[in-house]
Amino acid sequence: MAEGSDDIQALIALMARLPGLGPRSARRIVLALIRKRGGQMTQLAQLLGSVATSSRECLICGNITDRDECAICIDPARANGEICVVEDVADLWALERGRAFRGRYHVLGGTLSALDEIGPDDLGIPALIDRIRDQRITEVILALNATVDGQTTAHYIAEALEGSGVAVTGLAQGVPIGGELDYLDDGTISAALRARRKL
Amino acid sequence: MAEGSDDIQALIALMARLPGLGPRSARRIVLALIRKRGGQMTQLAQLLGSVATSSRECLICGNITDRDECAICIDPARANGEICVVEDVADLWALERGRAFRGRYHVLGGTLSALDEIGPDDLGIPALIDRIRDQRITEVILALNATVDGQTTAHYIAEALEGSGVAVTGLAQGVPIGGELDYLDDGTISAALRARRKL
Repeated sequence: MAEGSDDIQALIALMARLPGLGPRSARRIVLALIRKRGGQMTQLAQLLGSVATSSRECLICGNITDRDECAICIDPARANGEICVVEDVADLWALERGRAFRGRYHVLGGTLSALDEIGPDDLGIPALIDRIRDQRITEVILALNATVDGQTTAHYIAEALEGSGVAVTGLAQGVPIGGELDYLDDGTISAALRARRKL
Repeated sequence: MAEGSDDIQALIALMARLPGLGPRSARRIVLALIRKRGGQMTQLAQLLGSVATSSRECLICGNITDRDECAICIDPARANGEICVVEDVADLWALERGRAFRGRYHVLGGTLSALDEIGPDDLGIPALIDRIRDQRITEVILALNATVDGQTTAHYIAEALEGSGVAVTGLAQGVPIGGELDYLDDGTISAALRARRKL
Protein backbone atom coordinates (compact mmCIF):
# COMPACT_ATOMS: atom_id res chain seq x y z
CA MET A 1 0.00 0.00 0.00
CA ALA A 2 2.15 2.82 -1.26
CA GLU A 3 -0.33 5.69 -1.29
CA GLY A 4 -0.66 6.47 2.41
CA SER A 5 -3.91 4.77 3.43
CA ASP A 6 -6.92 2.93 2.02
CA ASP A 7 -8.93 6.15 2.06
CA ILE A 8 -6.25 8.03 0.13
CA GLN A 9 -6.09 5.26 -2.47
CA ALA A 10 -9.89 5.21 -2.79
CA LEU A 11 -9.91 9.01 -3.13
CA ILE A 12 -7.29 8.92 -5.88
CA ALA A 13 -9.17 6.15 -7.71
CA LEU A 14 -12.43 8.13 -7.55
CA MET A 15 -10.78 11.37 -8.65
CA ALA A 16 -9.05 9.59 -11.53
CA ARG A 17 -12.48 8.78 -13.00
CA LEU A 18 -13.50 12.44 -13.29
CA PRO A 19 -13.50 13.87 -16.82
CA GLY A 20 -10.10 15.12 -17.92
CA LEU A 21 -8.28 13.51 -15.00
CA GLY A 22 -6.30 10.28 -14.79
CA PRO A 23 -4.33 8.43 -12.08
CA ARG A 24 -1.37 10.80 -12.37
CA SER A 25 -3.28 14.08 -12.14
CA ALA A 26 -5.56 12.63 -9.44
CA ARG A 27 -2.53 11.72 -7.32
CA ARG A 28 -1.12 15.21 -7.82
CA ILE A 29 -4.37 16.86 -6.74
CA VAL A 30 -4.84 14.63 -3.68
CA LEU A 31 -1.24 15.20 -2.58
CA ALA A 32 -1.61 18.96 -2.98
CA LEU A 33 -4.81 18.89 -0.92
CA ILE A 34 -3.20 16.82 1.84
CA ARG A 35 -0.16 19.10 1.92
CA LYS A 36 -2.27 22.20 2.44
CA ARG A 37 -3.97 20.49 5.41
CA GLY A 38 -7.47 20.98 6.71
CA GLY A 39 -8.71 24.22 5.17
CA GLN A 40 -9.16 23.65 1.47
CA MET A 41 -9.85 19.92 1.66
CA THR A 42 -12.54 20.20 4.35
CA GLN A 43 -14.16 23.09 2.47
CA LEU A 44 -14.15 21.04 -0.73
CA ALA A 45 -15.71 18.07 1.10
CA GLN A 46 -18.46 20.27 2.55
CA LEU A 47 -19.26 21.99 -0.75
CA LEU A 48 -19.37 18.68 -2.62
CA GLY A 49 -21.71 17.27 0.01
CA SER A 50 -24.04 20.26 -0.06
CA VAL A 51 -24.12 20.47 -3.87
CA ALA A 52 -24.75 16.70 -4.07
CA THR A 53 -27.83 17.00 -1.86
CA SER A 54 -29.22 20.36 -3.04
CA SER A 55 -28.70 20.47 -6.82
CA ARG A 56 -31.49 19.44 -9.15
CA GLU A 57 -33.01 20.39 -12.50
CA CYS A 58 -35.12 23.51 -12.89
CA LEU A 59 -38.71 22.35 -13.47
CA ILE A 60 -39.18 24.93 -16.25
CA CYS A 61 -35.98 24.97 -18.30
CA GLY A 62 -33.80 22.07 -17.12
CA ASN A 63 -30.94 24.28 -15.86
CA ILE A 64 -29.19 23.09 -12.69
CA THR A 65 -30.35 24.89 -9.57
CA ASP A 66 -30.86 24.41 -5.85
CA ARG A 67 -34.55 25.42 -5.98
CA ASP A 68 -37.58 24.25 -7.94
CA GLU A 69 -37.13 27.00 -10.51
CA CYS A 70 -33.74 28.41 -11.51
CA ALA A 71 -32.53 31.99 -11.07
CA ILE A 72 -32.92 32.68 -14.79
CA CYS A 73 -36.53 31.43 -15.00
CA ILE A 74 -37.67 33.51 -12.00
CA ASP A 75 -35.71 36.66 -12.95
CA PRO A 76 -38.38 39.32 -13.77
CA ALA A 77 -35.78 41.43 -15.61
CA ARG A 78 -35.33 38.90 -18.40
CA ALA A 79 -37.32 38.93 -21.65
CA ASN A 80 -40.18 36.41 -21.76
CA GLY A 81 -40.63 36.32 -25.52
CA GLU A 82 -37.36 34.58 -26.41
CA ILE A 83 -36.35 31.01 -25.68
CA CYS A 84 -32.83 29.83 -26.37
CA VAL A 85 -32.69 26.05 -26.88
CA VAL A 86 -29.41 24.40 -25.83
CA GLU A 87 -28.25 20.81 -25.78
CA ASP A 88 -26.68 20.87 -22.37
CA VAL A 89 -26.39 22.86 -19.13
CA ALA A 90 -22.73 23.53 -19.99
CA ASP A 91 -23.92 25.33 -23.15
CA LEU A 92 -26.36 27.42 -21.11
CA TRP A 93 -23.54 28.43 -18.78
CA ALA A 94 -21.33 29.30 -21.77
CA LEU A 95 -24.07 31.53 -23.23
CA GLU A 96 -24.59 33.24 -19.86
CA ARG A 97 -20.89 34.00 -19.63
CA GLY A 98 -21.21 35.72 -23.01
CA ARG A 99 -23.90 38.00 -21.50
CA ALA A 100 -25.43 38.52 -24.94
CA PHE A 101 -28.76 36.77 -24.39
CA ARG A 102 -31.33 38.14 -21.92
CA GLY A 103 -34.28 35.81 -22.53
CA ARG A 104 -35.12 32.35 -21.17
CA TYR A 105 -33.58 28.95 -21.85
CA HIS A 106 -34.64 25.40 -22.58
CA VAL A 107 -32.16 22.57 -21.97
CA LEU A 108 -32.74 19.48 -24.12
CA GLY A 109 -30.27 17.29 -22.28
CA GLY A 110 -28.97 15.76 -25.49
CA THR A 111 -29.57 15.58 -29.23
CA LEU A 112 -31.69 13.33 -31.41
CA SER A 113 -29.71 10.26 -32.33
CA ALA A 114 -30.93 7.27 -34.31
CA LEU A 115 -27.78 5.37 -33.33
CA ASP A 116 -28.34 5.82 -29.58
CA GLU A 117 -32.14 5.50 -29.95
CA ILE A 118 -32.77 9.01 -28.57
CA GLY A 119 -36.08 10.35 -29.89
CA PRO A 120 -37.94 13.66 -29.39
CA ASP A 121 -39.71 12.37 -26.24
CA ASP A 122 -36.39 11.57 -24.53
CA LEU A 123 -35.28 15.18 -24.98
CA GLY A 124 -38.49 16.82 -23.76
CA ILE A 125 -39.14 18.32 -27.19
CA PRO A 126 -42.95 17.95 -26.72
CA ALA A 127 -42.58 19.92 -23.46
CA LEU A 128 -40.68 22.61 -25.36
CA ILE A 129 -43.42 22.82 -28.02
CA ASP A 130 -46.05 23.10 -25.25
CA ARG A 131 -44.03 25.79 -23.55
CA ILE A 132 -43.73 27.78 -26.77
CA ARG A 133 -47.47 27.45 -27.47
CA ASP A 134 -48.65 28.30 -23.93
CA GLN A 135 -46.44 31.33 -23.38
CA ARG A 136 -46.17 34.27 -25.73
CA ILE A 137 -42.94 33.29 -27.38
CA THR A 138 -41.93 35.28 -30.44
CA GLU A 139 -38.50 33.83 -31.15
CA VAL A 140 -36.84 30.46 -30.58
CA ILE A 141 -33.05 30.53 -30.93
CA LEU A 142 -31.63 27.07 -31.58
CA ALA A 143 -28.14 27.34 -30.06
CA LEU A 144 -27.19 23.75 -30.82
CA ASN A 145 -23.74 22.43 -31.61
CA ALA A 146 -22.66 22.59 -35.24
CA THR A 147 -22.41 18.80 -35.36
CA VAL A 148 -24.52 16.40 -37.43
CA ASP A 149 -26.67 15.40 -34.41
CA GLY A 150 -27.01 19.02 -33.28
CA GLN A 151 -28.12 20.18 -36.72
CA THR A 152 -30.52 17.23 -37.12
CA THR A 153 -32.15 18.21 -33.83
CA ALA A 154 -32.33 21.86 -34.92
CA HIS A 155 -34.07 20.86 -38.17
CA TYR A 156 -36.54 18.65 -36.29
CA ILE A 157 -37.50 21.46 -33.89
CA ALA A 158 -37.68 24.03 -36.71
CA GLU A 159 -40.06 21.75 -38.64
CA ALA A 160 -42.20 21.05 -35.58
CA LEU A 161 -42.63 24.82 -35.10
CA GLU A 162 -43.52 25.53 -38.73
CA GLY A 163 -46.79 27.41 -39.01
CA SER A 164 -46.80 28.34 -35.30
CA GLY A 165 -45.91 31.96 -36.12
CA VAL A 166 -42.77 31.77 -33.98
CA ALA A 167 -39.51 32.96 -35.54
CA VAL A 168 -36.95 30.13 -35.43
CA THR A 169 -33.31 31.23 -35.65
CA GLY A 170 -29.88 29.63 -35.28
CA LEU A 171 -26.46 30.92 -34.28
CA ALA A 172 -24.38 32.48 -37.05
CA GLN A 173 -21.56 30.36 -38.40
CA GLY A 174 -18.24 31.85 -39.40
CA VAL A 175 -14.75 32.76 -38.28
CA PRO A 176 -14.38 32.87 -34.45
CA ILE A 177 -13.31 36.21 -32.94
CA GLY A 178 -9.52 36.26 -32.86
CA GLY A 179 -9.41 33.25 -35.16
CA GLU A 180 -6.72 32.89 -37.79
CA LEU A 181 -7.85 31.65 -41.20
CA ASP A 182 -4.73 29.52 -41.55
CA TYR A 183 -5.78 27.41 -38.56
CA LEU A 184 -9.47 27.05 -39.45
CA ASP A 185 -10.96 23.96 -41.09
CA ASP A 186 -12.17 24.17 -44.67
CA GLY A 187 -15.84 23.79 -43.70
CA THR A 188 -15.78 26.86 -41.45
CA ILE A 189 -14.02 28.96 -44.09
CA SER A 190 -16.56 27.91 -46.77
CA ALA A 191 -19.47 28.66 -44.42
CA ALA A 192 -18.01 32.06 -43.51
CA LEU A 193 -17.53 32.88 -47.20
CA ARG A 194 -21.08 31.85 -48.13
CA ALA A 195 -22.50 33.95 -45.27
CA ARG A 196 -20.27 36.95 -46.04
CA ARG A 197 -21.66 40.34 -45.07
CA LYS A 198 -21.30 43.91 -46.34
CA LEU A 199 -18.81 46.02 -44.34
CA MET B 1 -25.62 33.88 -11.42
CA ALA B 2 -25.27 31.56 -14.35
CA GLU B 3 -23.76 28.52 -12.71
CA GLY B 4 -26.74 27.09 -10.87
CA SER B 5 -26.28 28.24 -7.28
CA ASP B 6 -23.82 29.98 -4.97
CA ASP B 7 -22.56 26.61 -3.75
CA ILE B 8 -21.94 25.37 -7.28
CA GLN B 9 -20.04 28.56 -8.11
CA ALA B 10 -17.97 28.27 -4.93
CA LEU B 11 -17.27 24.60 -5.71
CA ILE B 12 -16.10 25.43 -9.24
CA ALA B 13 -13.89 28.26 -7.93
CA LEU B 14 -12.31 25.96 -5.35
CA MET B 15 -11.78 23.14 -7.85
CA ALA B 16 -10.25 25.57 -10.35
CA ARG B 17 -7.44 26.24 -7.86
CA LEU B 18 -6.33 22.62 -7.74
CA PRO B 19 -3.07 21.82 -9.57
CA GLY B 20 -3.58 21.16 -13.27
CA LEU B 21 -7.17 22.41 -13.27
CA GLY B 22 -8.62 25.77 -14.36
CA PRO B 23 -12.11 27.29 -14.54
CA ARG B 24 -13.00 25.32 -17.67
CA SER B 25 -11.95 21.87 -16.45
CA ALA B 26 -13.41 22.58 -12.98
CA ARG B 27 -16.80 23.42 -14.54
CA ARG B 28 -16.63 20.25 -16.60
CA ILE B 29 -15.89 18.10 -13.55
CA VAL B 30 -18.57 19.70 -11.37
CA LEU B 31 -21.20 19.32 -14.13
CA ALA B 32 -20.26 15.67 -14.63
CA LEU B 33 -20.58 15.06 -10.88
CA ILE B 34 -23.97 16.78 -10.70
CA ARG B 35 -25.24 14.84 -13.73
CA LYS B 36 -24.38 11.50 -12.17
CA ARG B 37 -26.35 12.51 -9.07
CA GLY B 38 -25.79 11.41 -5.47
CA GLY B 39 -23.52 8.39 -5.64
CA GLN B 40 -20.13 9.53 -6.82
CA MET B 41 -20.35 13.08 -5.48
CA THR B 42 -21.41 12.07 -1.98
CA GLN B 43 -18.72 9.40 -1.89
CA LEU B 44 -16.12 11.96 -2.99
CA ALA B 45 -17.27 14.38 -0.29
CA GLN B 46 -17.04 11.71 2.39
CA LEU B 47 -13.60 10.50 1.31
CA LEU B 48 -12.25 14.06 1.13
CA GLY B 49 -13.59 14.73 4.61
CA SER B 50 -12.12 11.58 6.09
CA VAL B 51 -8.73 12.02 4.40
CA ALA B 52 -8.62 15.67 5.52
CA THR B 53 -9.08 14.70 9.17
CA SER B 54 -7.05 11.47 9.28
CA SER B 55 -3.98 12.05 7.11
CA ARG B 56 -0.72 13.15 8.67
CA GLU B 57 3.03 12.65 8.32
CA CYS B 58 4.67 9.43 9.47
CA LEU B 59 6.75 10.30 12.55
CA ILE B 60 9.65 8.21 11.27
CA CYS B 61 9.97 8.85 7.53
CA GLY B 62 7.61 11.70 6.64
CA ASN B 63 5.39 9.62 4.32
CA ILE B 64 1.67 10.43 4.42
CA THR B 65 -0.33 8.03 6.55
CA ASP B 66 -3.40 7.81 8.77
CA ARG B 67 -1.44 6.44 11.76
CA ASP B 68 1.59 7.63 13.72
CA GLU B 69 3.90 5.41 11.69
CA CYS B 70 3.33 4.54 8.04
CA ALA B 71 2.74 1.08 6.57
CA ILE B 72 6.27 1.00 5.11
CA CYS B 73 8.00 1.89 8.39
CA ILE B 74 6.15 -0.78 10.39
CA ASP B 75 6.40 -3.50 7.71
CA PRO B 76 8.64 -6.23 9.23
CA ALA B 77 9.25 -7.72 5.77
CA ARG B 78 11.24 -4.72 4.55
CA ALA B 79 15.00 -4.39 4.81
CA ASN B 80 16.18 -2.21 7.70
CA GLY B 81 19.68 -1.52 6.45
CA GLU B 82 18.74 0.67 3.46
CA ILE B 83 17.23 4.14 3.53
CA CYS B 84 16.06 5.78 0.33
CA VAL B 85 16.06 9.59 0.61
CA VAL B 86 13.42 11.37 -1.52
CA GLU B 87 12.47 15.00 -1.90
CA ASP B 88 8.75 14.51 -1.75
CA VAL B 89 5.97 12.05 -0.88
CA ALA B 90 5.07 11.91 -4.61
CA ASP B 91 8.59 10.57 -5.29
CA LEU B 92 8.17 7.92 -2.58
CA TRP B 93 4.90 6.80 -4.19
CA ALA B 94 6.58 6.70 -7.62
CA LEU B 95 9.38 4.49 -6.25
CA GLU B 96 6.85 2.19 -4.57
CA ARG B 97 4.98 1.79 -7.85
CA GLY B 98 8.30 0.64 -9.38
CA ARG B 99 8.46 -2.14 -6.71
CA ALA B 100 12.25 -2.20 -7.01
CA PHE B 101 13.14 -0.93 -3.53
CA ARG B 102 12.34 -2.96 -0.42
CA GLY B 103 14.01 -0.86 2.29
CA ARG B 104 12.84 2.20 4.25
CA TYR B 105 12.37 5.81 3.17
CA HIS B 106 13.13 9.30 4.37
CA VAL B 107 11.14 12.21 2.95
CA LEU B 108 13.00 15.53 3.02
CA GLY B 109 9.98 17.62 2.05
CA GLY B 110 12.01 19.83 -0.28
CA THR B 111 15.57 20.57 -1.39
CA LEU B 112 18.24 22.93 -0.13
CA SER B 113 17.80 26.31 -1.77
CA ALA B 114 19.80 29.45 -1.07
CA LEU B 115 17.28 31.48 -3.05
CA ASP B 116 14.29 30.34 -0.97
CA GLU B 117 16.38 30.31 2.24
CA ILE B 118 15.82 26.60 2.82
CA GLY B 119 18.65 25.15 4.91
CA PRO B 120 19.43 21.63 6.21
CA ASP B 121 17.37 22.19 9.38
CA ASP B 122 14.24 23.00 7.37
CA LEU B 123 14.50 19.64 5.60
CA GLY B 124 15.11 17.52 8.69
CA ILE B 125 18.57 16.56 7.46
CA PRO B 126 19.93 16.44 11.06
CA ALA B 127 17.09 14.01 11.88
CA LEU B 128 18.12 11.88 8.89
CA ILE B 129 21.77 11.86 10.05
CA ASP B 130 20.62 10.84 13.57
CA ARG B 131 18.45 8.11 12.13
CA ILE B 132 21.34 6.74 10.05
CA ARG B 133 23.67 6.81 13.06
CA ASP B 134 21.23 5.26 15.54
CA GLN B 135 20.04 2.41 13.34
CA ARG B 136 22.28 -0.04 11.56
CA ILE B 137 22.08 1.53 8.13
CA THR B 138 24.50 0.18 5.54
CA GLU B 139 23.36 2.11 2.46
CA VAL B 140 21.72 5.47 1.84
CA ILE B 141 20.25 5.85 -1.65
CA LEU B 142 19.80 9.50 -2.60
CA ALA B 143 16.84 9.34 -5.02
CA LEU B 144 16.70 13.08 -5.58
CA ASN B 145 15.64 14.87 -8.73
CA ALA B 146 18.35 15.45 -11.35
CA THR B 147 17.94 19.22 -10.97
CA VAL B 148 20.49 21.72 -9.63
CA ASP B 149 18.74 21.94 -6.24
CA GLY B 150 18.30 18.17 -6.05
CA GLN B 151 21.95 17.50 -6.81
CA THR B 152 23.13 20.22 -4.37
CA THR B 153 21.09 18.53 -1.65
CA ALA B 154 22.51 15.12 -2.60
CA HIS B 155 26.07 16.46 -2.36
CA TYR B 156 25.36 18.05 1.01
CA ILE B 157 24.00 14.79 2.47
CA ALA B 158 26.82 12.74 0.93
CA GLU B 159 29.40 15.06 2.53
CA ALA B 160 27.65 15.00 5.90
CA LEU B 161 27.83 11.19 5.87
CA GLU B 162 31.49 11.02 4.88
CA GLY B 163 33.47 8.90 7.31
CA SER B 164 30.33 7.35 8.81
CA GLY B 165 30.97 4.04 7.05
CA VAL B 166 27.61 4.16 5.28
CA ALA B 167 27.56 3.59 1.51
CA VAL B 168 25.98 6.61 -0.18
CA THR B 169 24.57 5.95 -3.67
CA GLY B 170 22.49 7.81 -6.23
CA LEU B 171 20.14 6.72 -9.02
CA ALA B 172 21.76 5.88 -12.33
CA GLN B 173 21.40 8.49 -15.05
CA GLY B 174 20.87 7.52 -18.68
CA VAL B 175 18.36 6.82 -21.41
CA PRO B 176 14.86 6.10 -20.02
CA ILE B 177 13.38 2.67 -20.85
CA GLY B 178 11.55 3.01 -24.17
CA GLY B 179 13.21 6.39 -24.77
CA GLU B 180 14.23 7.45 -28.26
CA LEU B 181 17.63 9.12 -28.61
CA ASP B 182 16.26 11.60 -31.11
CA TYR B 183 13.90 13.06 -28.50
CA LEU B 184 16.38 13.17 -25.59
CA ASP B 185 18.21 16.31 -24.49
CA ASP B 186 21.98 16.58 -25.05
CA GLY B 187 22.75 16.39 -21.32
CA THR B 188 21.09 13.01 -20.92
CA ILE B 189 22.80 11.59 -24.01
CA SER B 190 26.22 12.78 -22.81
CA ALA B 191 25.58 11.34 -19.32
CA ALA B 192 24.45 8.02 -20.77
CA LEU B 193 27.54 7.88 -23.00
CA ARG B 194 29.91 8.66 -20.11
CA ALA B 195 28.28 5.97 -17.97
CA ARG B 196 28.21 3.40 -20.78
CA ARG B 197 28.33 -0.23 -19.72
CA LYS B 198 29.64 -3.46 -21.21
CA LEU B 199 26.96 -5.60 -22.84
